[in-house]
Amino acid sequence: MPKAAPPDAFANTPEPPYYAVIFTSQRRDADEDFYHEIAAKMAELALKQPGCLGAESARDANGFGLTVSYFSSLEAIKLWRDHAEHQPAQNLGRETFYRHYELRIARVERAYSWSELD
Amino acid sequence: MPKAAPPDAFANTPEPPYYAVIFTSQRRDADEDFYHEIAAKMAELALKQPGCLGAESARDANGFGLTVSYFSSLEAIKLWRDHAEHQPAQNLGRETFYRHYELRIARVERAYSWSELD
Repeated sequence: MPKAAPPDAFANTPEPPYYAVIFTSQRRDADEDFYHEIAAKMAELALKQPGCLGAESARDANGFGLTVSYFSSLEAIKLWRDHAEHQPAQNLGRETFYRHYELRIARVERAYSWSELD
Repeated sequence: MPKAAPPDAFANTPEPPYYAVIFTSQRRDADEDFYHEIAAKMAELALKQPGCLGAESARDANGFGLTVSYFSSLEAIKLWRDHAEHQPAQNLGRETFYRHYELRIARVERAYSWSELD
């Protein structure tokens, strides 16, 4: 196991309250390259949206993954959901990339951070 | 990539509202077996706690991972935080297992589920 993920793997979120979109998904066993292309494009685009505070993501060797994106408001989440480039990616998700997913919208009320360097 | 994670990889949560504990962590590059032993023990114990509704977890090849545990109330989260067997595991986490972690407590307000079988 390499020593660490990229330094920006953690989202540098402000003090709560803010919102979290918890996306849990099981990938299908196909279209690996196309999936990574679209996923990277959407991650980059999401971070540019007004009110997007960051995102954290991990997928294991079984293709099971969690992505949590943080937003300043429910309105910002809706704007991203309805974004003209995000909509076709959501369709691809259902038609091609995923077997199953769960999407939960939550209001972050408390947050704690710990680092060995502190 | 194998076709799927275990069928219980998704938490079978009730209708919102309920709470999510979003734990994002970077593992250190050591104590692999001991870590997996303690992590499995804590996952099993957490699911037995009153008010624990389930959990979802993924860690990538860089040792970066997300675990989201779901609870019925803030009180149930506090009871698990203060549990006599969970406390020493939290200390091990800081002393031995993790480089950095972020812990966020959030109230789940909406949830959507999608499956290719639906």
